Amino acid sequence: MPTKRKIINDPVFGFISIPRHILDVLGHPDVQRLTRIRQMGLSNTVYPGAMHTRFLHSIGAMHLMSEAIAQLRQQGVDISTAQSEAARLAILLHDTGHGPFSHVLEHTIVSGITHEEISLLIMQRINEDLGGKISDAIEVFTDHEQPHFLHQLVSSQLDVDRLDYLSRDSFFCGVSEGMVASARIINMLNVVDDNLVVEAKGIYSVEKFLLARRLMYWQVYLHKTSVIAEQMLTLILKRARQLSQNGEGLLCLPPLSFFMENDITGDDFRTNRDVLDAYTAMDDHDVIAAVKTWQYSKDFVLSKLCQDLLNRRFFKVTVLNDGDDMPDGESLTAQYVKSFGISPEEAQYFHGVRTVSTDTYNADDGGIRILMNDGQVRDLADASDMLNHSVLNKHVRKHYAYQLRM
Amino acid sequence: MPTKRKIINDPVFGFISIPRHILDVLGHPDVQRLTRIRQMGLSNTVYPGAMHTRFLHSIGAMHLMSEAIAQLRQQGVDISTAQSEAARLAILLHDTGHGPFSHVLEHTIVSGITHEEISLLIMQRINEDLGGKISDAIEVFTDHEQPHFLHQLVSSQLDVDRLDYLSRDSFFCGVSEGMVASARIINMLNVVDDNLVVEAKGIYSVEKFLLARRLMYWQVYLHKTSVIAEQMLTLILKRARQLSQNGEGLLCLPPLSFFMENDITGDDFRTNRDVLDAYTAMDDHDVIAAVKTWQYSKDFVLSKLCQDLLNRRFFKVTVLNDGDDMPDGESLTAQYVKSFGISPEEAQYFHGVRTVSTDTYNADDGGIRILMNDGQVRDLADASDMLNHSVLNKHVRKHYAYQLRM
Amino acid sequence: MPTKRKIINDPVFGFISIPRHILDVLGHPDVQRLTRIRQMGLSNTVYPGAMHTRFLHSIGAMHLMSEAIAQLRQQGVDISTAQSEAARLAILLHDTGHGPFSHVLEHTIVSGITHEEISLLIMQRINEDLGGKISDAIEVFTDHEQPHFLHQLVSSQLDVDRLDYLSRDSFFCGVSEGMVASARIINMLNVVDDNLVVEAKGIYSVEKFLLARRLMYWQVYLHKTSVIAEQMLTLILKRARQLSQNGEGLLCLPPLSFFMENDITGDDFRTNRDVLDAYTAMDDHDVIAAVKTWQYSKDFVLSKLCQDLLNRRFFKVTVLNDGDDMPDGESLTAQYVKSFGISPEEAQYFHGVRTVSTDTYNADDGGIRILMNDGQVRDLADASDMLNHSVLNKHVRKHYAYQLRM
Amino acid sequence: MPTKRKIINDPVFGFISIPRHILDVLGHPDVQRLTRIRQMGLSNTVYPGAMHTRFLHSIGAMHLMSEAIAQLRQQGVDISTAQSEAARLAILLHDTGHGPFSHVLEHTIVSGITHEEISLLIMQRINEDLGGKISDAIEVFTDHEQPHFLHQLVSSQLDVDRLDYLSRDSFFCGVSEGMVASARIINMLNVVDDNLVVEAKGIYSVEKFLLARRLMYWQVYLHKTSVIAEQMLTLILKRARQLSQNGEGLLCLPPLSFFMENDITGDDFRTNRDVLDAYTAMDDHDVIAAVKTWQYSKDFVLSKLCQDLLNRRFFKVTVLNDGDDMPDGESLTAQYVKSFGISPEEAQYFHGVRTVSTDTYNADDGGIRILMNDGQVRDLADASDMLNHSVLNKHVRKHYAYQLRM
Repeated sequence: MPTKRKIINDPVFGFISIPRHILDVLGHPDVQRLTRIRQMGLSNTVYPGAMHTRFLHSIGAMHLMSEAIAQLRQQGVDISTAQSEAARLAILLHDTGHGPFSHVLEHTIVSGITHEEISLLIMQRINEDLGGKISDAIEVFTDHEQPHFLHQLVSSQLDVDRLDYLSRDSFFCGVSEGMVASARIINMLNVVDDNLVVEAKGIYSVEKFLLARRLMYWQVYLHKTSVIAEQMLTLILKRARQLSQNGEGLLCLPPLSFFMENDITGDDFRTNRDVLDAYTAMDDHDVIAAVKTWQYSKDFVLSKLCQDLLNRRFFKVTVLNDGDDMPDGESLTAQYVKSFGISPEEAQYFHGVRTVSTDTYNADDGGIRILMNDGQVRDLADASDMLNHSVLNKHVRKHYAYQLRM
Repeated sequence: MPTKRKIINDPVFGFISIPRHILDVLGHPDVQRLTRIRQMGLSNTVYPGAMHTRFLHSIGAMHLMSEAIAQLRQQGVDISTAQSEAARLAILLHDTGHGPFSHVLEHTIVSGITHEEISLLIMQRINEDLGGKISDAIEVFTDHEQPHFLHQLVSSQLDVDRLDYLSRDSFFCGVSEGMVASARIINMLNVVDDNLVVEAKGIYSVEKFLLARRLMYWQVYLHKTSVIAEQMLTLILKRARQLSQNGEGLLCLPPLSFFMENDITGDDFRTNRDVLDAYTAMDDHDVIAAVKTWQYSKDFVLSKLCQDLLNRRFFKVTVLNDGDDMPDGESLTAQYVKSFGISPEEAQYFHGVRTVSTDTYNADDGGIRILMNDGQVRDLADASDMLNHSVLNKHVRKHYAYQLRM
Repeated sequence: MPTKRKIINDPVFGFISIPRHILDVLGHPDVQRLTRIRQMGLSNTVYPGAMHTRFLHSIGAMHLMSEAIAQLRQQGVDISTAQSEAARLAILLHDTGHGPFSHVLEHTIVSGITHEEISLLIMQRINEDLGGKISDAIEVFTDHEQPHFLHQLVSSQLDVDRLDYLSRDSFFCGVSEGMVASARIINMLNVVDDNLVVEAKGIYSVEKFLLARRLMYWQVYLHKTSVIAEQMLTLILKRARQLSQNGEGLLCLPPLSFFMENDITGDDFRTNRDVLDAYTAMDDHDVIAAVKTWQYSKDFVLSKLCQDLLNRRFFKVTVLNDGDDMPDGESLTAQYVKSFGISPEEAQYFHGVRTVSTDTYNADDGGIRILMNDGQVRDLADASDMLNHSVLNKHVRKHYAYQLRM
Repeated sequence: MPTKRKIINDPVFGFISIPRHILDVLGHPDVQRLTRIRQMGLSNTVYPGAMHTRFLHSIGAMHLMSEAIAQLRQQGVDISTAQSEAARLAILLHDTGHGPFSHVLEHTIVSGITHEEISLLIMQRINEDLGGKISDAIEVFTDHEQPHFLHQLVSSQLDVDRLDYLSRDSFFCGVSEGMVASARIINMLNVVDDNLVVEAKGIYSVEKFLLARRLMYWQVYLHKTSVIAEQMLTLILKRARQLSQNGEGLLCLPPLSFFMENDITGDDFRTNRDVLDAYTAMDDHDVIAAVKTWQYSKDFVLSKLCQDLLNRRFFKVTVLNDGDDMPDGESLTAQYVKSFGISPEEAQYFHGVRTVSTDTYNADDGGIRILMNDGQVRDLADASDMLNHSVLNKHVRKHYAYQLRM
């Protein structure tokens, strides 16, 4: 009797089969850690359903990878079992390098290294633990020695990562407009000269995919409220770090303490195994537990920021477009100095400007290739009669001016 | 210009309007705490999408309360604006007494008081903070001085609490079979003699509601894996408490420390404000952060349990039905004593039997009243041609025998 | 380059792949006819979304057959490519014998033969047209020379026919309660001794499937309004036939004329190819077009019935349970004779009683087999702790007394 | 006891309440006729789920009108009960002028009048039948004497008609990409200077709405297969008409006969009640029944076209873009003359070019007004940073060259 597959129930894609032979990868602590890191950070301050984890996103992306590979094989693309497995593991593990509230950490305690590079370090560690089992997956991830189109499925302007997270985030937020017709797009995939292409009749679906992504950025990911909640968390960690390095003991759990007390560089990550250990010991719970503890700190700035974040008294925000006048910071500083008896430097924690921006499409980064009916391959920006270069390359930027809610 | 309502995006029910005048209740720390407590505890070990919070459940139940009231008014039932508001607030706040992983806490650190009674204590505290604003809601919750049918909508065999959580838990788990046709059931509601009734033509929907609930219990809430994960957490807290009371310092955050170090009774809750404060200072993050810290404890039992829980090496489980032989505990104890050099008492932490049971329906508890076409009101068990008394009252019990995974 | 599959977009199950080599079966006029026959007859009088065709149902059932076969193979059941193809074609063609508004026709113009037998005659005709291509499919359909469990997938108490139509009809009616977790049930299928079985842990899903079916019968298929609309159509055809055989020329299209003018028996179907040709020349449009034409008939009874059906002035209905008194038909007859100057025989067309009934489950008909955890196979009624024999075998009957809406 | 509302179950929007006092409008034969006219004509040749009716679309659009009015009142816009009722009836009746397969009829038997104008004639007839009850609705429809923004909700670049049909057609086709976030868009509506506006933060949703519409046009409404199936039906009616006017008796039902035998102008519609009667006597069944009958015509051209349409042997299609060479019609004509022994004129029925085109947006037609955060109102094309004038105004045209499938 054949071994039964394991099945994971995904509310987005239904039953997802997990082959038995990758259960050890799935059970690795570095993968299980993703069950304790939310995909969308503090977006739940605006969309309270957005509690899903990076673990489930990774499983969903792996499912789409299976679908994409089945489709490409149907098209006659030759993909071996080993290559297929490598591509599935590469996408399963692509997010292991994310820390809790990644964007916040990147502004505070982790610098000089991207989360993709940390993912690679972690994959190498997993590979050691599992006796070299995921070597091919690492090659797909780093785009060496494996078909290029498999890497493009893992990471490009139209990869299964984006196909999963747009639909998944839409689903859990209840924002139907971000839903992406992943089945339809996958059905249009093909490979030409080792590059992933989309057949011409799928061009409307690709345009909608780009628009869905753009909408999700402005309506969800860069929503002023959650961006500003993240800014508060950034300021909390910055203040805690400052206090900590000034020798004021701060109650928090050891791994976070480590990052509060030390200045860690990218090279530290690459060369000092303890750094990676401390990093992967952290998840959302460490950060939230710290904020909850620090709300009782005797430092006014730190306790005020923590209390306001926990009790939903977020900074007041004004949206400014490029070219608008910035708010008068000095008068705010003076006001807070006077109201709270704090120093001007401390008052800086209570106001400021956060700038956000996003691209809809980036042809320089490989772009999206369209396979025309005549067999030619063209960049999407050339092939679309709507989303031409000037539209797609427009770079939009907004400034969120924030200040304490008095 | 009229004040705009606030809108919450719920992936289950869509846009939910929040009247401006209850925003202060929504922003109260005791309600915001629910954003940090998951509805389904450790069910995410089996259904990884099940990360939704008690906060969103409370919002959803409030939405269904609005729908139910609109329907009853349409039927000619007289419900004043104040009564409507009271009922909405009562259901919004009905779960404030839940702690993190409630079922676990009830087996360890909280005893002699139900979570419903804690909810009442918290509602009274909120009422003080808000100048008596929710007095009527408390009366609906306690079934005093307000129409009885409003209380039944909050708490009965067919209340908006169950209508929401069955659909919501199904949605996030991806178990479509638990979905309940809440709109249809609500459309069949009426009131006779101050009691909630369902019109006869809704009987099939009510039967399906009961079956959906039964299915959700056995397939989801009482799934052996998540029940056993919760059992591990129970044992962890029990061991930590034992160590703590033996004077061995345990690293954890202050509120949980308080409950680890003290034996708290129901009367302590009722009379000592500090107890309630410590209780409401806790949420899921305190518990998970503690487990993460304790995995490095020098106590073998505690660290083993914590590591296994975090890394998904759950106890091995055998399902026994009523009447089956129980496993031989003594030989397991001996085995663990020998393998780990621990005492027989300590070995008890590594095996045992957990019994679970559920009722499909309980006519004694008020039951569900059906309004027959001839105007008579009958209990569901009399009115249904399928779910008669012998079927509905059957009480099913299962035993999960568990032991360490070696 | 491999031939691309054809894909059908199904709003219920998404993309459904159609293998190229069955396109000739799909294009056969006897299959294309199903695109012009609605699945639910006159149910759209109550559920206006219920316009879907028997064609799409057949495609959906074929899709579920593919899923079931993949699952059984995963379980280690040996199914050859030819057997798989035969089973898929058998379910694709199982409904070809349905006429327009089948239930109506069975009460009027077709007698002495079931629609299943007509399906077989049609499959034999298709087989001739396609050079014997579907011989194996016919054997699966008739349960000869092919694995019995394949026939059970086509036709039994838990077949892919029911799995499809319950979900599909629910979907198009907007009655979410009829939705069946087909993916979950299919995932629990296995084969023991050439019989289809469901694994024990799927028992809750099977119970819910039976309840969903029961609910759909009483809430949708046997809804008094659509049953009575069908009764009106039955009476229209009966009257038209009577007039026709009395030599009064009736304007309608040739195939329907044929059945109006002749008394056709089951044997005629079996032996006279012209009868089958006339039968398969008819679809919904012939019947509706006839009713529209006959509303201008000079026969009062016929024109009145047609006008009332078309303009939604359905008979008034009273629901009677077994044992209730039947209405006084004679006084109604007298009233209509007086009001309209018609004969007592003609007045019979304007009132009467229509009896409907359904079984939830029928163990005699093969039942549903449950594979217990200990390897034994038991009938569902023995295995379920809720749906025992006395509950499942209860046979419910209702009487709809109807009369002209004056 | 208050009269209970009637409820229609819509699979797209759920339960829709129908106020009792418009039941007579709903029951009028001109509205009931819409239950026999499919919304999407022959699109079911590509999307087999697309069987829904204009009736259900009208109900859905009425539901969205109610939602829009509730939202505008919430915004402080003053709308009386009578105005609300008028707007709801106007949208309920806006499609009554559609014939079966409207686009086909507009190319053949109806000329010199739009379906909107026919809707108005029919609404005036309903108004007479119901004693002036829908006079206000007619004013909203014709944009006289009623608030202009109500007319815009009925008919503009962003009306409830489009909001309903895009979501509904997507739903029934299973093309999720056409789904429109109608609830979100409606939540952003407001009125400035008697014009409907969308608040600035809704701009991404409006962009997605336009893209969804564009996608639905190219992927669904103008899909080459269904367009060509409609072209075949157009040619069938044209040929039948030619034969009929040549005195060759054609078997079909009286209303269609009337249009086959006579040349009807717009003025005939406006002045001759019989014309309108004949028109509204027709629905999908008349046309399909005729095609089924004519497949046995002794005229080769007519019978060939009918058989091929019914049995899914549609013309072969080549898509040509603007500027491509047109196919060589003369050689095709010669080929058919030779193969079938028909005249060159008759051979014209078997090949040709059908041109299709659509606008994404038309600012000249009133456009979509955006209410900026500073209170200014700007045209969408000015307000959007993506969909600027050059993009939005691009007019795309395709040519479908077709020929008989040999």
